[in-house]
Amino acid sequence: MIHVKVLIVGANGQIGKDLTSYIQASDQLEARAMIRKKEQAPFFEDLGAETALVDLEQDIDTIAEAASGTDAVVFTAGSGPKTGKDKTLMIDLDGAVKTIEAAKKVGVKRFIMISSFDTTREAILEANESFAPYVVAKYYADVWLRESDLDYTIIHPGLLTNNQGTGKVQAAKQVDRDEIPREDVARVILASLENDSTIGKEFQIVSGDTPVYQAIKSL
Amino acid sequence: MIHVKVLIVGANGQIGKDLTSYIQASDQLEARAMIRKKEQAPFFEDLGAETALVDLEQDIDTIAEAASGTDAVVFTAGSGPKTGKDKTLMIDLDGAVKTIEAAKKVGVKRFIMISSFDTTREAILEANESFAPYVVAKYYADVWLRESDLDYTIIHPGLLTNNQGTGKVQAAKQVDRDEIPREDVARVILASLENDSTIGKEFQIVSGDTPVYQAIKSL
Repeated sequence: MIHVKVLIVGANGQIGKDLTSYIQASDQLEARAMIRKKEQAPFFEDLGAETALVDLEQDIDTIAEAASGTDAVVFTAGSGPKTGKDKTLMIDLDGAVKTIEAAKKVGVKRFIMISSFDTTREAILEANESFAPYVVAKYYADVWLRESDLDYTIIHPGLLTNNQGTGKVQAAKQVDRDEIPREDVARVILASLENDSTIGKEFQIVSGDTPVYQAIKSL
Repeated sequence: MIHVKVLIVGANGQIGKDLTSYIQASDQLEARAMIRKKEQAPFFEDLGAETALVDLEQDIDTIAEAASGTDAVVFTAGSGPKTGKDKTLMIDLDGAVKTIEAAKKVGVKRFIMISSFDTTREAILEANESFAPYVVAKYYADVWLRESDLDYTIIHPGLLTNNQGTGKVQAAKQVDRDEIPREDVARVILASLENDSTIGKEFQIVSGDTPVYQAIKSL
C-alpha cells in the first residue's frame, strides 16, 4: 500500500478540517495538519493525523520544516473577511508564496492551491473596492505557483457555504458563478490528490450534478 | 539634441513634483506627469510638462496609453501611510506591476522603480506588523520588475524627509539606514535617467558626502 503524506496548510479552517477527515479515512493518504495554535491540535490528533505548529507569518525555513517528509502540500489558508487587509497581504499572498518556496526547498513537487473563483485581471477590475485586494492577493499567489516548476493544481471554488455537501459538482475551466459547500471543495481536493491527471491544470468548481470523481477525471 | 520623454507615475507626490521640475529644467529630458485628478494639472502645466489623467486602479491598457510615446517610466507612486492596507495592495503592488506591464506593452524599455529601503525577505520578517504589508507589496513589485526584460533601475531610498536637499548622497548596494530628503531622491532619479550605467542595477541611497552624479557614476 502506498502512503502519500499531505501537508494541509490552513488545516483549522472548515475545508481543512473536512479534508483531514477524508484523508484520514482513505487508504492511501495521510494528513499532517499545519495549525497556528496548540489548542487546535486535539481535533486532528483525534483523527490520527500529525500536526505541525507554524504561523504563516514565520519564515520559509519554518514552513519548509513542516513540509519536510511529506509528498504533497495543500494550501487552503485564508485570512478571512474579519481580519484587516494587511492580513490579506501577509497570509493570502505572502503566506501562499512562502509555502510554495518552502515546498520547493524540501523537494515536495505536488502542490494544490485553493484559489478564489476568478483571479484574472478582468476579475480584479470588476471586483468591488472591498473585495478587490483579496482578488489581487490570490492573483499573485496563483501567478507565483504557475511560474514555479511544481506539479500544481489550482482549484477555483465558487461562493463557499457551510451547507452539507452533496458530493456532486460542476468542474471546468469556466463555469457559471454559483455556490459550493466547503465539504464538497474538500472532496474535490481529495479527488485531485488521488488523480495525477489534475497536475498542471486549474479549474472552477460549483455545485452540480456530476459525482466529484467523475467530474475530476473528465477535466 | 536628443529628447527623452519620461512618464512620471505618481507625479503629484513630492518626489514626483521635484523630479518634474528637474526634468523640465534639463536640456535632454521632457516630463509627462501621470496624475489622478484634473485639479493637479496646473502645477505641471506651469512647468511646461505634459499631463496624463490616469488612476492606477484602472486597467493596464489605460496606463499603457499614458506611457505610449515616452522613452522611460519612473514609478514613484505610493498609497501613503494614511490610506488603508487595501490601497497598499492596489497601488504599491498592483499599480506598480500594471505599470511594468503597460511599459512592456508599448515597448518602453527603460523603467526606474522607487522602492523601499530594504525589500528582502529578512526585512519583511524584521518589519513591525504595521509596516510589514508595505514591505511585502514593494517586495513583489521589485521581483516582478527584476524578472521582466525591461532596462530597470531599482532605487531603495532611506527614510524620506521633506528637508531641503543637499545634492549629496551615499549610494551603494548596501548602506546604513538613514534619512534622505525627497528632493535628493528626485536628483538621484534624474541622474539615473541620464546614466545608462544604472541599467540592471539596484542600490540604497541615504544622505551623504558625495555629489549625486559622482555617486551614481561610481555604482
